[in-house]
Amino acid sequence: MKLGEGVEAAIHCASMLAGVDGNSTMSGAAMAEAFGLSPSYLLKHLNQLTAARILESVPGPAGGYRLARPAERITLLDIVLAVEGKEPAFRCGEIRQRGPVKLDASAYVKPCGINTAMLKAERAYRAALAETKLSDIVANYAAEGDPRSIAASCAFVERHQRPQKSASSKQI
Amino acid sequence: MKLGEGVEAAIHCASMLAGVDGNSTMSGAAMAEAFGLSPSYLLKHLNQLTAARILESVPGPAGGYRLARPAERITLLDIVLAVEGKEPAFRCGEIRQRGPVKLDASAYVKPCGINTAMLKAERAYRAALAETKLSDIVANYAAEGDPRSIAASCAFVERHQRPQKSASSKQI
Repeated sequence: MKLGEGVEAAIHCASMLAGVDGNSTMSGAAMAEAFGLSPSYLLKHLNQLTAARILESVPGPAGGYRLARPAERITLLDIVLAVEGKEPAFRCGEIRQRGPVKLDASAYVKPCGINTAMLKAERAYRAALAETKLSDIVANYAAEGDPRSIAASCAFVERHQRPQKSASSKQI
Repeated sequence: MKLGEGVEAAIHCASMLAGVDGNSTMSGAAMAEAFGLSPSYLLKHLNQLTAARILESVPGPAGGYRLARPAERITLLDIVLAVEGKEPAFRCGEIRQRGPVKLDASAYVKPCGINTAMLKAERAYRAALAETKLSDIVANYAAEGDPRSIAASCAFVERHQRPQKSASSKQI
């Protein structure tokens, strides 16, 4: 089982966007620079976050991305599902039905117990992800992060954020 | 995030092997037939289970596979890790260190909070998988499975199991 690398990039970018002032945005290129990623690679994941309404994209030369709602209302589960899709990790192929003895479809109305057990574990995983808000990640970083790293991140955001005239839905 | 299809095959085969008499074995070919799988595909996963000491392989023309320990001492986590490997689903690439400002390595001694949060969720997933024993899967199937399906499975095992003279470590 493996999550795509995009999850790490997506959570870091969302955390960084939680630190911009007011309705300012940050460009994908700036975030790619912040994390040493290829801009085109990152764009795919920023688009996924925008499609899931975690980010909003402001068009135009001074545009960029910002959080679509406050960091208190974004969970790690929201971000993981946006990047990885909503299908469960375990995908039952109903191999119980592929045996040599062909039974009537009515013999398989109840879900396979193996699928049920695997989905129960997935619910525990998702519940744990849903418990962690983006604001928790940011608060933890502010409290526990190395002061040099925090100072460098803040300076980066300060330098790259783009103030906007348009209202942000983040405040709604 | 996606688990390989081998997980479903592995859990079904282990469940079937929980039903053989005493120290009998069942061949990989028989289990492949039971679940409509390619024998060579299944062999890979039976080898993984054997390497993880969940199954034991008895050589020879009348050999095959059997559980290496009682089904009460095999969990879904054991099987998932045997097939998927032990690495966590989230693999931190330390992209926090790739920014334009090069900080001293001492700034990254504490683990990244994003990695910590993702691993916490993975622990919840693994704990849930560890709670379900193979014997639970079998007992649930016996209690809740369709009687036609149970009868067909029992007949299949009866027909394909291979009694052995050698002692099984399952009873140890």
